[in-house]
Amino acid sequence: MTMANSLISDLVVANRILFSEGVLDGFGHVSVRDARNADRFWLARSMAAGLVEARDVMAFDLDGAPIDARGRAVFLERFIHSEIYRARPDVQSVVHSHSPNLVPFGVTPVKLKPLYHMTGFLGAGVPVFEIRKVAGTETNLLITDGRLGKALARSLAGNPAALMRGHGSVVVGESLQQSVYRAVYMELNARLQAEAMRLGRVTYLTAGEARAGAAVNDRMLHRPWELWKRKAMGK
Amino acid sequence: MTMANSLISDLVVANRILFSEGVLDGFGHVSVRDARNADRFWLARSMAAGLVEARDVMAFDLDGAPIDARGRAVFLERFIHSEIYRARPDVQSVVHSHSPNLVPFGVTPVKLKPLYHMTGFLGAGVPVFEIRKVAGTETNLLITDGRLGKALARSLAGNPAALMRGHGSVVVGESLQQSVYRAVYMELNARLQAEAMRLGRVTYLTAGEARAGAAVNDRMLHRPWELWKRKAMGK
Amino acid sequence: MTMANSLISDLVVANRILFSEGVLDGFGHVSVRDARNADRFWLARSMAAGLVEARDVMAFDLDGAPIDARGRAVFLERFIHSEIYRARPDVQSVVHSHSPNLVPFGVTPVKLKPLYHMTGFLGAGVPVFEIRKVAGTETNLLITDGRLGKALARSLAGNPAALMRGHGSVVVGESLQQSVYRAVYMELNARLQAEAMRLGRVTYLTAGEARAGAAVNDRMLHRPWELWKRKAMGK
Amino acid sequence: MTMANSLISDLVVANRILFSEGVLDGFGHVSVRDARNADRFWLARSMAAGLVEARDVMAFDLDGAPIDARGRAVFLERFIHSEIYRARPDVQSVVHSHSPNLVPFGVTPVKLKPLYHMTGFLGAGVPVFEIRKVAGTETNLLITDGRLGKALARSLAGNPAALMRGHGSVVVGESLQQSVYRAVYMELNARLQAEAMRLGRVTYLTAGEARAGAAVNDRMLHRPWELWKRKAMGK
Repeated sequence: MTMANSLISDLVVANRILFSEGVLDGFGHVSVRDARNADRFWLARSMAAGLVEARDVMAFDLDGAPIDARGRAVFLERFIHSEIYRARPDVQSVVHSHSPNLVPFGVTPVKLKPLYHMTGFLGAGVPVFEIRKVAGTETNLLITDGRLGKALARSLAGNPAALMRGHGSVVVGESLQQSVYRAVYMELNARLQAEAMRLGRVTYLTAGEARAGAAVNDRMLHRPWELWKRKAMGK
Repeated sequence: MTMANSLISDLVVANRILFSEGVLDGFGHVSVRDARNADRFWLARSMAAGLVEARDVMAFDLDGAPIDARGRAVFLERFIHSEIYRARPDVQSVVHSHSPNLVPFGVTPVKLKPLYHMTGFLGAGVPVFEIRKVAGTETNLLITDGRLGKALARSLAGNPAALMRGHGSVVVGESLQQSVYRAVYMELNARLQAEAMRLGRVTYLTAGEARAGAAVNDRMLHRPWELWKRKAMGK
Repeated sequence: MTMANSLISDLVVANRILFSEGVLDGFGHVSVRDARNADRFWLARSMAAGLVEARDVMAFDLDGAPIDARGRAVFLERFIHSEIYRARPDVQSVVHSHSPNLVPFGVTPVKLKPLYHMTGFLGAGVPVFEIRKVAGTETNLLITDGRLGKALARSLAGNPAALMRGHGSVVVGESLQQSVYRAVYMELNARLQAEAMRLGRVTYLTAGEARAGAAVNDRMLHRPWELWKRKAMGK
Repeated sequence: MTMANSLISDLVVANRILFSEGVLDGFGHVSVRDARNADRFWLARSMAAGLVEARDVMAFDLDGAPIDARGRAVFLERFIHSEIYRARPDVQSVVHSHSPNLVPFGVTPVKLKPLYHMTGFLGAGVPVFEIRKVAGTETNLLITDGRLGKALARSLAGNPAALMRGHGSVVVGESLQQSVYRAVYMELNARLQAEAMRLGRVTYLTAGEARAGAAVNDRMLHRPWELWKRKAMGK
């Protein structure tokens, strides 16, 4: 298998895992930067993640233009990916979802913060992108062009994730395995944080705990990946 | 496949999807208006949606009378469908369910409102039908005749959905795909709105965001439909 | 199939449904009164409901004694069934479970009440059996003899259900189909009532609505039964 | 089958059950003390519990050193197991998990207490291990050496379980069946206790009820085990 084939095959698995684990439903997408050409990334054609196969994966440039569309429909929000890859050379993979437990944190003043070592990557908390600040109060909330993509990337800044008010979230990683891990556990952290806040005063991770917790878990990414892959691909 | 056959086949799929996605259980139903005769609609015989097959689909007129019953039992609440089709020429499909997360919004003063672009169709919020206002405090809550169906249709008015106090909800669409989409995401919005209200002050969509969000999602209805169909039909 | 065989076969289905629908787990049980001998009832040997087969079903008398044990272990709490059958000639089936959403209502002062027509059978609300009143504060909470069974039956009185503080619940019916229906929807009502109470002031069913709602649903019991049976038996 | 083989085979089942019942995901682990050599215990190599097979099980001594690693990666947190086995001769099995509903109880001042007879083993409530007290505020939260394992074992003391702040929990048993039972129902108790606390003042078990409830359930451990095994092993 060539490197590109292997990346595409992993991207298919990532799509299926994110569906199987409840991060993506009929909407949302995951991409990976091309391993040999940092100005390109791979993303499925416009379709549900749970049905993606290798032939559905397309290459895009950093303006969000498909390299070789061959008539396939493309995601309206491919600019989420292109502008984050442009702004963040460290990022190799991007997940955009409407995963349910994150939506309430996007529309209220409560900050999503790491509750346990599994989500240490959330650090001092997740910024919220408010599209009204850049495009007014009449948008469809979507990131449908490069200008909006750039604004989202500015909100994301150097963080691993950003919530999008009234829409969903974006999470990035240095690999597909890392962005998928973060998408699954950020969603879980939201559920547990909401629950903990109802019980009483919450002790969050310190900055040092968050950093150290993230560092150790980053060395374990293959472990959940193998499990999720088995579940998602049914093999 | 003739147009009627294709519509019936889609109605079977809609039944199975609404069961598979947790909107319908042993109760509730979905109908579609006949494509050639606007005074008729298709609806399963009285049975659980999750078991419906093409042979279970029957035609009804706008008085809720079956065209050709052949001894098959009919839903007590077929008047929900007949009276909405009569009052709303724009409506091509109706879903009536007791989907769980909507029930609490029907029995409390809290208004169900759109939290994110996926539910922009909820607009300024969902009206609640109170059967006590038209039939007193001793009913079985069901819409068992044309008079109650007309009262429900008046509550629904020009909206895409109405909650029914102490009972469930009704949601309509310009197509089966749209009513199914709305039923699934209205249920999800209820869960997320309840959660968000417990976290803090909620920013709902503006009227403009709701309209624009609904418009863009209405062009994507095939995407979740294909996914849900695959899950529900097991193919 | 003889009448006894048919009843036993339905009891197997009831066991599997109650497991499949999340009412029973490794614990809890369902019984049915013998159709020809009102002083006998059928109940599985001591085992998980989800694994019950026809050969596991045993007959008991109204003292909770097995008619023909043949070495099979019996449930410690068979007296729940025997004493309710003794006290309530109208009852043909009894379900005892620890279904999760009911547990909080058993240990707090909040009364479980019908939120919608599906649970009209709950009437004016569900009584709570407090074992401390009859056996002190050092029991294992279980109904392990006829005296405790009688006390539970007194708490149940003429109601369709009773909660058991720190333990679970019991629900009865005029048929297996009815007790199973009630067990599933009482559990759901608990979840939705808790949710509604957090949203705001709740409008419960009136006595008349509860009665009329229960009456109409009692004529539909075959509908969810067929669906649940298909799911539970995998056919 | 030799005794060791039988124990390893049960440990595989325990791994699969804990995954299937939602206690373990890609992380967490379960061990069992060797039946013939109390200074050794069995634990899978570093991998997801849901994928463990007999060949993945390794023996360790009470310093957490593998007896015969043959190149297999070991869990960073094997010291949870080794130090508890050292400190608690009565313990034959240890489960360490991040099961979701327990996390909020670890990071808030609310004490996890038994709500019903199924969790009588929780006794007067579950202690919380705060790693900051022994290793400061910059750790990765993990129990990565014998010193931290000893500190955790001190927090656990004579209890059946301890929560780990910002991390997860540990639960022990006199057998695999008992530690698995406790892990599943402790997780459920957390969900139900949080729910009950929102409803109103909660009546917890008395010390006598907790003790008697635990005693009777300890004689039933085979019942859920058989059910869970069937679900988890797909046979």
